[in-house]
Amino acid sequence: MALSAEELKEVEASLIELAKTEVGPLIKSQSGTKFESYEDKANNVDLVTVVDKKVEGIVRDFLKKKYPNFDFIGEESYVKGETTIGQKPTFIVDPIDGTTNFIHGYPYSCTSLGLSENGKPVVGVVHNPHLNQTFHASKGNGAFLNSERINVSPRPLVLQKSIIGLESGSERDETPGSNFENKLHTIKNLLSEKGGFIHGSRSVGSSAMNLCYVASGLLDAYWEGGPWAWDVCAGWCILEECGGTMVSGNPGEWEIPLDNRCYLAVRGGAKQEEQKWFIESLWSHVEGRLQY
Amino acid sequence: MALSAEELKEVEASLIELAKTEVGPLIKSQSGTKFESYEDKANNVDLVTVVDKKVEGIVRDFLKKKYPNFDFIGEESYVKGETTIGQKPTFIVDPIDGTTNFIHGYPYSCTSLGLSENGKPVVGVVHNPHLNQTFHASKGNGAFLNSERINVSPRPLVLQKSIIGLESGSERDETPGSNFENKLHTIKNLLSEKGGFIHGSRSVGSSAMNLCYVASGLLDAYWEGGPWAWDVCAGWCILEECGGTMVSGNPGEWEIPLDNRCYLAVRGGAKQEEQKWFIESLWSHVEGRLQY
Repeated sequence: MALSAEELKEVEASLIELAKTEVGPLIKSQSGTKFESYEDKANNVDLVTVVDKKVEGIVRDFLKKKYPNFDFIGEESYVKGETTIGQKPTFIVDPIDGTTNFIHGYPYSCTSLGLSENGKPVVGVVHNPHLNQTFHASKGNGAFLNSERINVSPRPLVLQKSIIGLESGSERDETPGSNFENKLHTIKNLLSEKGGFIHGSRSVGSSAMNLCYVASGLLDAYWEGGPWAWDVCAGWCILEECGGTMVSGNPGEWEIPLDNRCYLAVRGGAKQEEQKWFIESLWSHVEGRLQY
Repeated sequence: MALSAEELKEVEASLIELAKTEVGPLIKSQSGTKFESYEDKANNVDLVTVVDKKVEGIVRDFLKKKYPNFDFIGEESYVKGETTIGQKPTFIVDPIDGTTNFIHGYPYSCTSLGLSENGKPVVGVVHNPHLNQTFHASKGNGAFLNSERINVSPRPLVLQKSIIGLESGSERDETPGSNFENKLHTIKNLLSEKGGFIHGSRSVGSSAMNLCYVASGLLDAYWEGGPWAWDVCAGWCILEECGGTMVSGNPGEWEIPLDNRCYLAVRGGAKQEEQKWFIESLWSHVEGRLQY
């Protein structure tokens, strides 16, 4: 039996409270250049892991106490090949999304708190404490930015007139056929005047923030390979509640699981057939296949 | 005879007032998706030009009245091959920087108001009304974000650990040796694990905002070809007042004029020799030469 819209709204409220009172202030206070001073010789990556684990512990303890029967998957506790997303309600959590931003103090690190049920995203809260932006939604209840309902104004959706979130990512292997090679080729195809000739690409360095910006119509789309379920679960729910659509980043895959690792998000405020044309048009510029 | 620090500070205050009271509200109210509704068939580009010209008119009238002896160069009134930047005090103004953002409502359009003297930037005000960020500086007087002094914390500056602002730009000609080709190759070189292997690239779609983010240390650098003097004059002054350095985007050119069209901005908070090594290290990954 699925959770009701009221129950989901209640979970949404809990996650907002958690994000704003506990997690947000911690991320904000720990983010930035203190990890790289002339005096501080400690390893950046280790320091991120420490904060990541601390945040995940806080989130897990809070949620286990309040929702003892729900499952929990977090970036830090995930075990490759073992952890799977089941049918029962499951919190899927990225304590800090945009860790490179977090290290550098670039103001696009956030916490991404999602809930799935039957393998689909049903609640999402993305809180960016630097910009004071809290995007939140639950299935059937609409999406909000800082308590204000998000309404994407209806307007044409055409590849050639679009701004798309495109990220270089952390995989940088130049071997022919590698994800990095295919990504750069695809980005070139989308930009080129002989290709998609899109209006422009933008890069914020966080999957969750990209999805929220597509959801609210600031970006027309976000094409990506590499993110994990916890990077996209919350944003995906917000996207759908704003009329947006999520498919695979690889051509032809209209229905994908949460942990597909390869995604294309397209905004709402457009007719369904326009979204479909946009997706097919973008797919036609994808080089090779991203593989994870 | 050069303007004194006090005189420059007074110009800075005038430009802040102009940006916040006149220009900012107009940009904010006209930006965004109203240019692309199903109902509105008007041409986007023309609408941008209308607002751009209107803003430039307001700025020019205000400045001509207050500083009748200063020259004025604006994006909309510039005549290629005729307009040159002279030695006397010259306002160099981009009424709306980030016009693609402006059309789409992506919150990184801004006004960029600069003053040059003897061909060098001496006052800069960059106002982003969407994020309510006003970066401002004048030569010898330091730089500020919303009246708060910008201090870039001292920390190592190394290419491999950097986040760099990299933009795809509007030139998209795939011919071998074109600026578009050279840019994409350079971006690949900087990202590749066999190349610069930088931490990441970010893209906000506005030269002025990129320069302000480097100035304040959110980005380590910004490499670009294509911008005009009005895109960089204000941000360049802010960058220098934060200890940053501006050189050419093409290797070997340490001293460049305001209208070089090709730039590399590097943050402060680092020793001068570190800036120099960083610049040489980045230059070593530049493919071909950008030409304008």
